[in-house]
Amino acid sequence: MAIAWSETAASMEALSLSPPMSPPVILTQDELKKIAAYKAVEFVESGMVLGLGTGSTAKHAVDRIGELLRQGKLSNIVGIPTSKKTQEQAVSLGIPLSDLDNYPTIDLAIDGADEVDPHLNLVKGRGGSLLREKMVEGACKKFVCIVDESKLVKHLGGSGLALPVEIVPFCWKFTANKLQKLFQGSDCVAKLRNDGEGKPFVTDNGNYIVDLYLKKEMGDLQVASDAILRIAGVVEHGMFLDMATTVIVADEIQLRGRLTLVYLRRLFDLIKV
Amino acid sequence: MAIAWSETAASMEALSLSPPMSPPVILTQDELKKIAAYKAVEFVESGMVLGLGTGSTAKHAVDRIGELLRQGKLSNIVGIPTSKKTQEQAVSLGIPLSDLDNYPTIDLAIDGADEVDPHLNLVKGRGGSLLREKMVEGACKKFVCIVDESKLVKHLGGSGLALPVEIVPFCWKFTANKLQKLFQGSDCVAKLRNDGEGKPFVTDNGNYIVDLYLKKEMGDLQVASDAILRIAGVVEHGMFLDMATTVIVADEIQLRGRLTLVYLRRLFDLIKV
Repeated sequence: MAIAWSETAASMEALSLSPPMSPPVILTQDELKKIAAYKAVEFVESGMVLGLGTGSTAKHAVDRIGELLRQGKLSNIVGIPTSKKTQEQAVSLGIPLSDLDNYPTIDLAIDGADEVDPHLNLVKGRGGSLLREKMVEGACKKFVCIVDESKLVKHLGGSGLALPVEIVPFCWKFTANKLQKLFQGSDCVAKLRNDGEGKPFVTDNGNYIVDLYLKKEMGDLQVASDAILRIAGVVEHGMFLDMATTVIVADEIQLRGRLTLVYLRRLFDLIKV
Repeated sequence: MAIAWSETAASMEALSLSPPMSPPVILTQDELKKIAAYKAVEFVESGMVLGLGTGSTAKHAVDRIGELLRQGKLSNIVGIPTSKKTQEQAVSLGIPLSDLDNYPTIDLAIDGADEVDPHLNLVKGRGGSLLREKMVEGACKKFVCIVDESKLVKHLGGSGLALPVEIVPFCWKFTANKLQKLFQGSDCVAKLRNDGEGKPFVTDNGNYIVDLYLKKEMGDLQVASDAILRIAGVVEHGMFLDMATTVIVADEIQLRGRLTLVYLRRLFDLIKV
């Protein structure tokens, strides 16, 4: 279900937009991410245990939570970070942190995604934190996913970008080949992710990431998921099936008029009932 | 199928048994393991790529392969070790080594097991090398499993000893609790394995091991396997389903008479057709 809604500039104060202009201003992708993130943080209540996501969109949500704590608008929050990077960010913002060992049930997690299909199944992990994200978000009562419109796909893998799989470094070529063969019907190409300097990218858990590029649909996603997990050497994959409870999508926002009235042409929740 | 067979002392020369005595001599468990291991090495032919197992039984097989190479009775062997420990042992014996990246198909693997059920499904990993063993033995044309009779069980978990699960260290208590809950119908208790000095045991892949103690059967093993693998945080488990092609079991061997004739009362192959 897509619902259109609008709101005043009040909630947009942190956007630091340039002064009001007459012609429409198209916001950047990062600004769109920020709007979705701020909307998601409206779900947060004092006293909650929160899963804190990783990536460029989730970063805005963590910033916002820190801001509301500082302003005294939120209190008694416990954050469960999904990566070392988010942990560092949260510490710098003064957000109290713990972990799943101490809080095995999480009230709400907010995180981005790389792809969202019409059933709210996700691809995550292009940022490299898929395992911890899946552990945290699998422990949530509510998981609000925040994306800009470019992440919406008809089927997972449909963006032409990667489906990431975390694997143990031991004989990674062997495992990558097994993954490629598994999806040969989807014209799959498996590539080891590198760190930009020619070395393998290493996850927070000391593992590697193999990115699967699929030209055709995988078929039944749960079957594909089990088949990936059955490969010895695979630690986890980036398909998050039946986990997101809400997806917030922001796109094509226009700023109009002198009153800095923000008109959100399409900022909608996909609510799973 | 169980087939009884006997052979002369010739193949037992390396056992270094005490001088022949009139009364029956019961061999130790380690000697039984050695007999099973030596029998398994009879499957090895020159030119083979071999998976080299880990543990007290497999160690005898690796020793024997090294001995036959040294004697010139085997040649042109490539070994694929299943652990750092086995790698060190093989190097010390002069066995040429490689890995799955270079040899994705293995002719024959020889390894021990902690439990064997009547369908030749195994529990492995009490030695802590289950992941690499599963990768190597999953790539084999033939997998000969060698055990003493104490390892035979009616159903996996039936020995009352552990079903090991390799997990990432991150929030291990959370993952251990999930595993225990998954098998609560089997009165499961999940325990983190320690290294004997109060610290967690760490695998060759930098992970932890949670040992599951089950009081009742798990039901359908493939369903149980998939359910374990679906838990984010689990890397691999110690059930080796439908992987062993041959199981050699040695037990209750008696040494009789002055001619050091060895009578193997029951040393049988369970051959899967």
